[in-house]
Amino acid sequence: MAARKNTKVTPVIRRKRLSAKATIGQVPGAPVYVGSKADSDLYIEVFDYDKESLQEKRISEIEDTYGFIASEPITWININGLSHIHEIEKIGKQYKLHPLVIEDIVNTQQRPKMEEFENYLFVVLKMLHMDKDKGLIIEHVSFILGKNYVISFQEAEGDVFDSVRNRLRTSKGVIRSMTADYLLYALMDGIVDYYFYLLDEFGNRIEGLEDQLFETEVNNDISAEIQSLKREILRIRRAVSPLREIVSRIEKSGHPNLSEKITLYLSDLQDHIIQVSESIEIYREMTWSLMDMYMTTISNKMNTIMKVLTIIATIFIPLTFIAGIYGMNFEYIPELQYQNGYFVLLGVMLVIFLVMLLYFRSKKWL
Amino acid sequence: MAARKNTKVTPVIRRKRLSAKATIGQVPGAPVYVGSKADSDLYIEVFDYDKESLQEKRISEIEDTYGFIASEPITWININGLSHIHEIEKIGKQYKLHPLVIEDIVNTQQRPKMEEFENYLFVVLKMLHMDKDKGLIIEHVSFILGKNYVISFQEAEGDVFDSVRNRLRTSKGVIRSMTADYLLYALMDGIVDYYFYLLDEFGNRIEGLEDQLFETEVNNDISAEIQSLKREILRIRRAVSPLREIVSRIEKSGHPNLSEKITLYLSDLQDHIIQVSESIEIYREMTWSLMDMYMTTISNKMNTIMKVLTIIATIFIPLTFIAGIYGMNFEYIPELQYQNGYFVLLGVMLVIFLVMLLYFRSKKWL
Amino acid sequence: MAARKNTKVTPVIRRKRLSAKATIGQVPGAPVYVGSKADSDLYIEVFDYDKESLQEKRISEIEDTYGFIASEPITWININGLSHIHEIEKIGKQYKLHPLVIEDIVNTQQRPKMEEFENYLFVVLKMLHMDKDKGLIIEHVSFILGKNYVISFQEAEGDVFDSVRNRLRTSKGVIRSMTADYLLYALMDGIVDYYFYLLDEFGNRIEGLEDQLFETEVNNDISAEIQSLKREILRIRRAVSPLREIVSRIEKSGHPNLSEKITLYLSDLQDHIIQVSESIEIYREMTWSLMDMYMTTISNKMNTIMKVLTIIATIFIPLTFIAGIYGMNFEYIPELQYQNGYFVLLGVMLVIFLVMLLYFRSKKWL
Amino acid sequence: MAARKNTKVTPVIRRKRLSAKATIGQVPGAPVYVGSKADSDLYIEVFDYDKESLQEKRISEIEDTYGFIASEPITWININGLSHIHEIEKIGKQYKLHPLVIEDIVNTQQRPKMEEFENYLFVVLKMLHMDKDKGLIIEHVSFILGKNYVISFQEAEGDVFDSVRNRLRTSKGVIRSMTADYLLYALMDGIVDYYFYLLDEFGNRIEGLEDQLFETEVNNDISAEIQSLKREILRIRRAVSPLREIVSRIEKSGHPNLSEKITLYLSDLQDHIIQVSESIEIYREMTWSLMDMYMTTISNKMNTIMKVLTIIATIFIPLTFIAGIYGMNFEYIPELQYQNGYFVLLGVMLVIFLVMLLYFRSKKWL
Amino acid sequence: MAARKNTKVTPVIRRKRLSAKATIGQVPGAPVYVGSKADSDLYIEVFDYDKESLQEKRISEIEDTYGFIASEPITWININGLSHIHEIEKIGKQYKLHPLVIEDIVNTQQRPKMEEFENYLFVVLKMLHMDKDKGLIIEHVSFILGKNYVISFQEAEGDVFDSVRNRLRTSKGVIRSMTADYLLYALMDGIVDYYFYLLDEFGNRIEGLEDQLFETEVNNDISAEIQSLKREILRIRRAVSPLREIVSRIEKSGHPNLSEKITLYLSDLQDHIIQVSESIEIYREMTWSLMDMYMTTISNKMNTIMKVLTIIATIFIPLTFIAGIYGMNFEYIPELQYQNGYFVLLGVMLVIFLVMLLYFRSKKWL
Repeated sequence: MAARKNTKVTPVIRRKRLSAKATIGQVPGAPVYVGSKADSDLYIEVFDYDKESLQEKRISEIEDTYGFIASEPITWININGLSHIHEIEKIGKQYKLHPLVIEDIVNTQQRPKMEEFENYLFVVLKMLHMDKDKGLIIEHVSFILGKNYVISFQEAEGDVFDSVRNRLRTSKGVIRSMTADYLLYALMDGIVDYYFYLLDEFGNRIEGLEDQLFETEVNNDISAEIQSLKREILRIRRAVSPLREIVSRIEKSGHPNLSEKITLYLSDLQDHIIQVSESIEIYREMTWSLMDMYMTTISNKMNTIMKVLTIIATIFIPLTFIAGIYGMNFEYIPELQYQNGYFVLLGVMLVIFLVMLLYFRSKKWL
Repeated sequence: MAARKNTKVTPVIRRKRLSAKATIGQVPGAPVYVGSKADSDLYIEVFDYDKESLQEKRISEIEDTYGFIASEPITWININGLSHIHEIEKIGKQYKLHPLVIEDIVNTQQRPKMEEFENYLFVVLKMLHMDKDKGLIIEHVSFILGKNYVISFQEAEGDVFDSVRNRLRTSKGVIRSMTADYLLYALMDGIVDYYFYLLDEFGNRIEGLEDQLFETEVNNDISAEIQSLKREILRIRRAVSPLREIVSRIEKSGHPNLSEKITLYLSDLQDHIIQVSESIEIYREMTWSLMDMYMTTISNKMNTIMKVLTIIATIFIPLTFIAGIYGMNFEYIPELQYQNGYFVLLGVMLVIFLVMLLYFRSKKWL
Repeated sequence: MAARKNTKVTPVIRRKRLSAKATIGQVPGAPVYVGSKADSDLYIEVFDYDKESLQEKRISEIEDTYGFIASEPITWININGLSHIHEIEKIGKQYKLHPLVIEDIVNTQQRPKMEEFENYLFVVLKMLHMDKDKGLIIEHVSFILGKNYVISFQEAEGDVFDSVRNRLRTSKGVIRSMTADYLLYALMDGIVDYYFYLLDEFGNRIEGLEDQLFETEVNNDISAEIQSLKREILRIRRAVSPLREIVSRIEKSGHPNLSEKITLYLSDLQDHIIQVSESIEIYREMTWSLMDMYMTTISNKMNTIMKVLTIIATIFIPLTFIAGIYGMNFEYIPELQYQNGYFVLLGVMLVIFLVMLLYFRSKKWL
Repeated sequence: MAARKNTKVTPVIRRKRLSAKATIGQVPGAPVYVGSKADSDLYIEVFDYDKESLQEKRISEIEDTYGFIASEPITWININGLSHIHEIEKIGKQYKLHPLVIEDIVNTQQRPKMEEFENYLFVVLKMLHMDKDKGLIIEHVSFILGKNYVISFQEAEGDVFDSVRNRLRTSKGVIRSMTADYLLYALMDGIVDYYFYLLDEFGNRIEGLEDQLFETEVNNDISAEIQSLKREILRIRRAVSPLREIVSRIEKSGHPNLSEKITLYLSDLQDHIIQVSESIEIYREMTWSLMDMYMTTISNKMNTIMKVLTIIATIFIPLTFIAGIYGMNFEYIPELQYQNGYFVLLGVMLVIFLVMLLYFRSKKWL
Repeated sequence: MAARKNTKVTPVIRRKRLSAKATIGQVPGAPVYVGSKADSDLYIEVFDYDKESLQEKRISEIEDTYGFIASEPITWININGLSHIHEIEKIGKQYKLHPLVIEDIVNTQQRPKMEEFENYLFVVLKMLHMDKDKGLIIEHVSFILGKNYVISFQEAEGDVFDSVRNRLRTSKGVIRSMTADYLLYALMDGIVDYYFYLLDEFGNRIEGLEDQLFETEVNNDISAEIQSLKREILRIRRAVSPLREIVSRIEKSGHPNLSEKITLYLSDLQDHIIQVSESIEIYREMTWSLMDMYMTTISNKMNTIMKVLTIIATIFIPLTFIAGIYGMNFEYIPELQYQNGYFVLLGVMLVIFLVMLLYFRSKKWL
C-alpha cells in the first residue's frame, strides 16, 4: 500500500526532472514546451463583451483572434495547448511580446512572476488541482493584460474559470461593466479560490491519517503517505508563496492598463492569498506533527507487545521452574511421597498465578 | 478516549472547510454567509450616549437605527446575526459602505484586517471563546467607525462586551465623555482582554497534561490531546497575529475619525497584544515539548517493563536449567543418590537466587 | 520527585494566570494590583544628594517625599509596595503622571516598556531573582525619570540596588557628580547585572543535569526538571527580550531629561543586554539538547537491559533444551546407559557455555 | 557499504580543509592556488567574433591573447589552469586588475561575489558537477567583463559552456549580434542551467533512498548515505545562496560595460536562480524527512521482531509448563494413570495452541 | 570517558560564570580583570617602522612606549597581560581613552564591538585557539587605532600575529608602505585566518565521530562528546557573529584615521568573515545531525540484540516443549515404547531446527 502511494506521486516529480534536463543548453529565449501535455490539441476560446453585448466563440486558428482584440469591446482570448509553440509565437509577433515572455509562457517550469512592459502586463501563475489517479497536478497559466484585452495561456483544456464564464454570460456582478483589468483580477481570483478547495482536500487527508493513527489495531505503515503529503505541501507552498509579492507589485505598478478602481479588488485578493499561505503553514505543521504521532503510536504498540510477553513469561517461567524441581530424580525428595503432594503443589501454583495477576493489575498492565 | 477528544475538535474544522468550499466560484463582492450560525435571529442593540444621558434599546428592524446615528450623541449599534444578509446590505447602502466591506463583514473566513475609507474605518477581528462541548470557537466580528458612531457586527448573540456595556450604563471611567474612537478602542480592548482568559485555559490544559505525564501508572494515549492542543494554538495564533499590524496602522492612519488622545490608549492596547502573542509562543513551545516528554515517558515505561522481564528471566532460566539437569534419566548420576542431595541443591538454588537479587540491586534495577 | 519539582514551579505560573483573569473587564486605565505580594507594607526610601552632601531617609507617608523633589539636589525615591494603590495614585497626581502610567506601575503583568512624556520618562523593567523555595521570581519594577529625580516602584522590599546605595553613600565612582539620568542608568545596570548572576545559576543547573545524565546507574526521571528549565528560560527571555529596544529608544529619544554624556553609558548597558540575550539563547539550545541526551540515555539503558536478557537467555535456553532431551522417558536412549554419559554431557554443556561467552565477548557485549 | 559512501565524500572535504590551512599567515593579496588540480595544464581558448565573423583558437601563451582584446570584435578568453599563477598575474598586469582580484581568481575557497571596478566587472561563481567517483565537485570560476571582452578563469579543462560555444559557432540565437555583457550572461546562464541538472540527480538519489526504505526486508544502514546527502545539499546551498544578490547587484550597478538590453535577461537569470534555491530548500526538507522515515522503519522492524518473539514465547511457555507438570515425580498424580491421559492432554494442548493463534489473529499480529 | 570529556570543557565555562559574578555590583567604568590569566607577566612589544626602517623592541615599562607613538613612523604596541590594570590605566590616561574603553579592554567577558571616538577607533575581537588540554580557548583582544599607531591588548603572551611580524621584518607585501589602518587590518585578518584553521579542527572531530558511529561494534557513549561539540560551536558562533557588523561599520565610519585604500581590504576581510560564518552554520547542522545518527545507531544495535534473542528463543523454546512432552510420566505414551522412537524424534527436531533457520534466512535476519 505504501508502494502504491509512492508511485502515485512519482510521475509528477519525474516529469518535472526530465523536463528541467530538456532545456539545459538551450538558447535563452528559445521557447521549449517542457510540460506533460504535449499531445493536447490547440483549443482557443474567445469572449468579446461590453456592458450590452457578449460574443462567445471557439476557434482553432490563431489568426482568427486578431480581429477581436482590434475591435472596441473587451476581449478575453483563452488559449489551451502550450505544446503548439508555433501558434504561440505567432501571437507573440502579432502583439509584440518579448521573446523571453514567449519562453516563460511555454516553460511550465517557470515560477509565478509578474513583469511590466510598455504595452502590457505579463503574469504567470500556477493552477493547482487534485487528480484522483495522478495526485497533485500543477498547471502553468500565463496572462497578458493589454489595453482592452486579456490573453490567457493554459497547458490543456479544463480549468477553474467556469465561474468567470458564467458571470460573463449571465452578466451577474459588475464584470461586464468593468475594464479588462477587472477580468484579469476575476481570473486570478478564480485560481486562488480553488486553492481553498485544494487545502480542504489536504485537511481531509490529514484528518484521515489522524483517524487511522487512533484506530487501535492498525498494521500498515503510513509513513509513506505522510512523506508524500509533506512533499505535496512543499510543492503547493512553492506555487503559492510568490503570489503575495506579485499581487502587491501589480497594485503598486501604476501601469496604464490598470484602472484606479481595481486597487481595492486586488487588496481583497491579497487578503485571500495571505489566508491561503497561513493555511498552508498550519497544514504543514500538522503534517510534521503526524510523523511524531506515528512514532508515538509505534512505540505504544511496542509497549503493548512487550507487556504481553512480560506477563506471560513472568507468570509461567517461575511455575515451570517449580515443576522442574519436582521432576528431578533425586532418590529422596520427601514432598513427592506425600499423599496429596501433587494437589498441594497445584494449589500453591494457583496462588502464585493469582498473586502475579493481581500484581500486574495493580501496575495497570492488565 | 482519544477518539472523543478528536471529535470534540472536528466540528469546528469541518465547518471551516465546508464553508470555504461554499464560496468557490462566487462573484467577488457578493456577500455570502459561510459561518455555522445561519439559524440565529437578527438582534440589534443600540446605545446612544453623551456625557449626560444614555439611551439603550433593543430593536429588530435595521431601519430603526438610522435616526440614532443621524442624531448628535455617540451611537453604538451592535448587530447580531450575520446570516441576515439583506439587512446588512441595507446598512451598507444607508452608510455607503463598499460592496467588498459588506462581503468581508459576512464572510466569517475573512482574516483580521483594517481598511481606511473616506468616511469610515473598517476593522475585522476574531472573538475567541472556549465552548465546553465544541472546543475553541472563533467568532467573526467587524467594526465600522464613523464620525460619531460605531457599528459592530457579530455572528450571533453573546459576546465579551458586557464590561463596556456596564461602563456605559454606570458612567464608570472616561468612556461617556470620550469620542466614538474611544468606544471602538474599548470594544477591541474587551476582545483582547478575553484572549488572556483563553490563554489561561490553555495554561491549565497544558499543566493538566503534564501532571498526567508524571503520574506513574497512566495508561491512556494523550498524543491525540496534545495534537488537538497544537492545532488550537495554531488557530489562535492565526487569529491574533495580524492584530499587531492592524492596531499600529490605525495609530498611524491619521484618519479624521480618530482623535489625538486615542494614541496612548491604542499603544496600551498594542502592549497587550504583544503580551498575548508572546504567551502564545510560550504555550506553543510548551505544547511541542509535551510531545517530547510523552515520548520519554513511553520509553521509560518500556524500560520498566523490560526490567521486570529481564529480572524474572535472568533469575529463573538458570535455575530451571539446573532442575533440568537433575531431571535427566542417566543411569549413573552420583548426586541423585546422596541422602541430602535434594536439600543441598535447594540451598544452592537459594544462594544463586540471592546473588542474582543482590546483583540487580547493585545495578539499581530493584 | 518529579511531582515536587513541578509544584515548585506551579505557584508562579498559577499566580500569573489568576491575576490576568482578575483584570478582565476592568476600565482601561483603572489601576489594579495583580501581583502576589498584596500584603507587603508600604515602605519608602529617599536619597537626596549632590556632589557634597547626601541625605538618606526611610519614611512612610507619600506626602513627605514632595519636599525632596522640589529641592535642588538630585533625589531618588524608592517606593516598595505596589498594593498600596491609593498612595501611588497620590504620587501620580502630585507629578501629573498619566492614568495609564499609574496602571502600568501597579500591573505586574505589564511587559517591559519605555514611554516618553513631556516632563518625564517612564520605564518598566523586570527584576529577576531565584528563590530557593518558589523558583524563579519575576518582580515588576518601574522608574520615573524627572528633571532632577528618579522615582522607582517595586512590589516589595528587597532588591538588587545595594551596590547603587553603597556608591551613593561612599561617593565611590562618578555617581554623586552626575545628573539624575545617570542614576536611572545605574539602577537599570544593577538589574541587568543581576541577570548575569541568574544565568550562572542556570548554567549550574544545566551542568548538574548533564552530570546526572552521565552517571551510569541513575534511575530517576529528569524530564520534569528539564521541562521546568525550559519554561523558566522562556519566561526569562520574555522579560529580557524587550530591553534591547527600550534602551536604544531611550538613547535616541533626545528627551530633555537626558544629558549628552549618558549615551556612552547607555550603549555600554546595551552591550550587556545583548550579552545576556546571547547567553539565554545558548542556554536554551543547551536545554533543548539535554532532552535529546536524556532520550539517548534511556535508549542506552534499554540496550543494556536487553543485552543482559539476551545473554542469559541465549546461553541457558539451549542448555535447558539438552537437559530436556535426556529427561525424556523413551525406553531406548543409548546415551543414558553409558557409564560416564552424565559427566560427558556436563562437559559438552560447559563447552557450549564457554563458546557462547567467547561469542558475546567478541561482539563486545561483555 | 556505509564506509564506502563516507570515503566517497571525504576527499572533497579534506581537500578544502587542508587548503584553508595552507593560506594561513599569507600576505593578504598574495595569490595562492589552493585547489585540488594543481597539476592541470594551462590551456587557453579564444573566441573572437562579431555578427559576421568568428575566429576560434587554442593557444598556450598568455601573451598571444593581448591582440584579440585590443581588436574591435568581441572576445572571449577562457583560461583553464588556476595553478599557473604567474601566467594569471601577467593577465592581471596587462589589464590592470587589482591584486585582490587576482587573489580571488586563484583562491578556490573564495565564495561567489561580484565587484565593480572602473574598467571592469569581476564575478566569482561556483560550477557544480557530479563525479561518479569523487561525488560532488565544486569548481571555482571567475569572470572579468571588460568593454568588449570577457575573460573566464577555470581550475581545469572541462566545463558546462559547450552550449555557448555551439551558439557562437552556429550563430544560433542572438548571441553573435549582442555585446560582451550578453556573453557574460550566457556563460552564467550555462552554469545555472547545470544546477537544475544536478538537482535532478539529487531528486533521483532521494527517491532511490525512499524506495529502499519501503522495500520490506532491507538490512543495510542508509543513515550514512542520508548524512552524506545532507552535507552535499548544505555545500550546494552555500555555493548557490550568494547568487541572488550578485545578479541583482549587477542589474543595479549601472556599470558602463552593461548595456540596457541586458536587464531583462538578467532578471530571467534571477528567476532561474530563485527556482534553484527553492528546489534546494525542498530537497533539503525531504532529506531531513528521510532520516525520520528511516527511524520509523527501524522501529517498525523492531516491532516485527518483537511480535515473532512474543508469539512464540506466549504460545510455548505455557505449554511447556503443562508438560513440566506431568513430568513431575509425585507418587500420586491421578491423571497419569488414566488410559488416555496422554492423548487427552495432547488435545488440551492443541486447543490452547489454537486459542492463542486466534487471539493473535484478532489482535492483527498475524 | 564521557566524564573526562565533560570536565575537559567545564573549566572554561566555570571560569566564565565565576567571573561574571565577580563584577556584579561594580561601579560601571571601573576596570576589573575577570579572565583566567591573572598571573601572567606584563610583556610589551614595540614595532616602529616606515618604508625604509624597522625598529623592534621588548620593553617592560609602559612609560617607555610613549616616545614611539609621538615619533613620525608607524608604531605597533602590543601589550600582553590584562591583569596589570594599573599599567593599562596609565596608557588610558596618556592617550585620553574613555574609562569605559579601559573597562572593555580588561573585561574579558566583553563581546566583540567597535566604537568610534574623536581621536581613535576602538575594536574588540576574540582570538580563538584550541588547547589540547583545556579545549577551546577564547582570548580577549582589543585594538586602539590612532593617527599613526595601533595598540593591541592581549590577555597573555602567545598569539596568531607571527605572520604579521614576519611581514614587518622582511618587508614582504605592502605592509611597510601602508598607513596604520592597514596594520589594524592585517592583525584582524590574522585573527580571522585562524578561525579557518579552528573550523578545520572541528571538521576533523565531526568526521572522527562519524567514523566511530559507522564502526560496527562500538560500545561507548559519544553523546557527551557531541554535546560538548555543540556547546563549543555555540561559543564560537557567539564570538564570530558580531564581526560582520563590526567590519562593515568600520568601512562606513569614514573615520579620519582610515585611508581610502583600506576599503577594498576591509571588504575582502568581510568576505572571509562571511565564509567563516557559513562554515560554522554548516558544522552546526552536521553536529545536530550526528545526534540523530547516534540515535539511529543505538536503535540499530537494539534491533541486532533483539534478533539474536528472538532467533535463539524461537528455535529452542518449541524444541524444549517437545522434549518436555516426552519427559511426562503418563503410564501410556505409545511413542516411548517404539524401538527407534528416540532417534525418530531427534530427526524431527533437526528438521524443525533447519526449517526455522531457513525461515530466518528468508527474512534476512541471518
